[in-house]
Amino acid sequence: MTWVDVPADSDFPLENLPFGVAAVPGTSPTVVVRIGDHVLDLAAAGIEPSLTRQPSINALMASGRGRAVRERAAEHLAGPARPDTVHALRDGDVLLPFTVGDYVDFYSSLAHATNLGRILRPDDEPLMPNWRHLPVGYHGRAGTVVVSGTPITRPDGLVACGDGAPAFRPSTRLDFELEVGFVVGTGGARITPDDAAEHVFGAVLVNDWSARDIQAYEYRPLGPNLAKSFATTISPWVVTLDALERFLVPAPVQDPKPASYLHAERDWALDVDLDVTVNDTVVSRTNFRELYWTFAQQLAHMTANGATTRTGDLFASGTVSGESPDSWGSLMELSWGGSRRIELADGTSRTFLEDGDHVVVRGCCRAPGSPRIGFGEAAGTVVARRSE
Amino acid sequence: MTWVDVPADSDFPLENLPFGVAAVPGTSPTVVVRIGDHVLDLAAAGIEPSLTRQPSINALMASGRGRAVRERAAEHLAGPARPDTVHALRDGDVLLPFTVGDYVDFYSSLAHATNLGRILRPDDEPLMPNWRHLPVGYHGRAGTVVVSGTPITRPDGLVACGDGAPAFRPSTRLDFELEVGFVVGTGGARITPDDAAEHVFGAVLVNDWSARDIQAYEYRPLGPNLAKSFATTISPWVVTLDALERFLVPAPVQDPKPASYLHAERDWALDVDLDVTVNDTVVSRTNFRELYWTFAQQLAHMTANGATTRTGDLFASGTVSGESPDSWGSLMELSWGGSRRIELADGTSRTFLEDGDHVVVRGCCRAPGSPRIGFGEAAGTVVARRSE
Repeated sequence: MTWVDVPADSDFPLENLPFGVAAVPGTSPTVVVRIGDHVLDLAAAGIEPSLTRQPSINALMASGRGRAVRERAAEHLAGPARPDTVHALRDGDVLLPFTVGDYVDFYSSLAHATNLGRILRPDDEPLMPNWRHLPVGYHGRAGTVVVSGTPITRPDGLVACGDGAPAFRPSTRLDFELEVGFVVGTGGARITPDDAAEHVFGAVLVNDWSARDIQAYEYRPLGPNLAKSFATTISPWVVTLDALERFLVPAPVQDPKPASYLHAERDWALDVDLDVTVNDTVVSRTNFRELYWTFAQQLAHMTANGATTRTGDLFASGTVSGESPDSWGSLMELSWGGSRRIELADGTSRTFLEDGDHVVVRGCCRAPGSPRIGFGEAAGTVVARRSE
Repeated sequence: MTWVDVPADSDFPLENLPFGVAAVPGTSPTVVVRIGDHVLDLAAAGIEPSLTRQPSINALMASGRGRAVRERAAEHLAGPARPDTVHALRDGDVLLPFTVGDYVDFYSSLAHATNLGRILRPDDEPLMPNWRHLPVGYHGRAGTVVVSGTPITRPDGLVACGDGAPAFRPSTRLDFELEVGFVVGTGGARITPDDAAEHVFGAVLVNDWSARDIQAYEYRPLGPNLAKSFATTISPWVVTLDALERFLVPAPVQDPKPASYLHAERDWALDVDLDVTVNDTVVSRTNFRELYWTFAQQLAHMTANGATTRTGDLFASGTVSGESPDSWGSLMELSWGGSRRIELADGTSRTFLEDGDHVVVRGCCRAPGSPRIGFGEAAGTVVARRSE
């Protein structure tokens, strides 16, 4: 029990306490934990102020003292009331929680990779031969990772135009990608999957906005670049691996068995209900646990060649799609490459996103007898580029 | 003239004065300019100590005061002798000059892209249809950019093994890539090519080490990842665009004419002589000016979709190869996919790099009547992974 009023259906009960950065009265943006619709100013509560009176959670993550700080925050919130240390959240108060080091995006959903293969290369095997042997991924742009609520300006780019020269114009196939991202707390190299918990601080929701027409034109042979580099939205609350531990479940069976550096003994799939809304219509509903490659395997792969990972590195799952069409995590799949329209509750329909569309990714862990551990949301509204 | 003794053939005369970070006696690593075989401790000389008594040049670059600081350094070095402010460079004194934001690597040499296409896809057109319309590029790993001299551990990875499962083992096709990189001083979005000088602080040499066997197995459909993420070496001295200005020359004619966002009126090709040695044998000698896409076009492209660029972002040219075989900038090309051996002066030969091989990339701008403006070197020795 806590002296802060927590709504019954809140994503953020006392058992969650995710970390973030917020503007609170009387100081510059500072490290907080979220509780209900409030935040606790950790430094004001006297909890490790040298690590928490900071504009990002990076110093706290690097210190390895995240667990201790979260436990002290829980004690503070369960102890005598100290209303001077908590603040009601207002719009715009919440900032990017961490400085992103490198951002790697994977492609680890079997259904998503299969769907994309079928849509883009209908005459070939949908999966590349490497897909079941390693978690395919690429580096994205860290400098354009933005916090939930940031408007997303429709990107320009070169798109195919018949057999002639490509046209430079605003993307007409702007898409979302429903993903879950993991934040590195303490770095390392050649990390084994079963050591993931020593390195991963927590998780966020990710919308890896994608311009499918730009991507189709640019992506060979070096992968996507401008199609995705304009913006990636994350949820503002880093839900700790400690809070998520009870939702770790066995991963799907992998066939063929991967190389030994990808073997894990422990359970690293994560049972998170996910959904996406466009203008308040749910367009996809899925669960994260069916992802083919676990985040522990992704971390092991990313460092298996000897590459180091650092505090603040972000790696994301890739689009999370389930088997059934209502569980696919992108409009590319839901509209089957633009060939089917998706009906919204307001009577309009979409293949890809229009200006003004408001896209919200939500995620929540639920289990019988357990408090709800939610992620909040990764939201963004598409806006046209202002003419200048 | 300067009171510091500068060898006649030095890369670093008074007209160069590149920025770097070095360990100097009596303080923590600090911002310096290089002159001959010495460095000037800028803060000790009283030059903007709040910007120069720093562990990286990022604050100086972000301030926009780089030109003024370099001019004051030149005055200091041309004025009354102040030997207490300069230090002879010793091995190991020189550190990574800037904190890398995002690292984007392009693929902008026509000869290199054509060679790679012929080697990897001999039955197809060597160039993808997009290649002459946009500077193809991808994001690399910023956290593993290392300074010249850092040993390069041979990476492990999954490599193809007949028709069966891939094998996880040390790369046997480890390669260098001869490149030139550009450092963003002050950020922006939708930068036009002719505004490049307002945003680019300077240039460095780059060796984008590549494991060709890992790359061949992993790269479809999202591009290279572990094949390149283990290490990228840069030279320690950021040669300013001011020092390079007189070596800006007209770029090769582009046919077809690119989209208008890539048009430039000014000359943005850069006349830099480049070479690579393996164990002191020159294996490639080329010039940077023939690159098909200029760095100004690369910067414009990278931000054309609305993506921002930040202080410390690094973008590199891609392998610089000329027309003739002795000017190709990678062993992949020099050995034509491993089918020809390259003879070294010590009587041994190579297709790809062996443990112990020492690879040095050098670069220098020369013109009649002009002082030599050199880059120094980007060097690294390949070492086997220690057994543990």
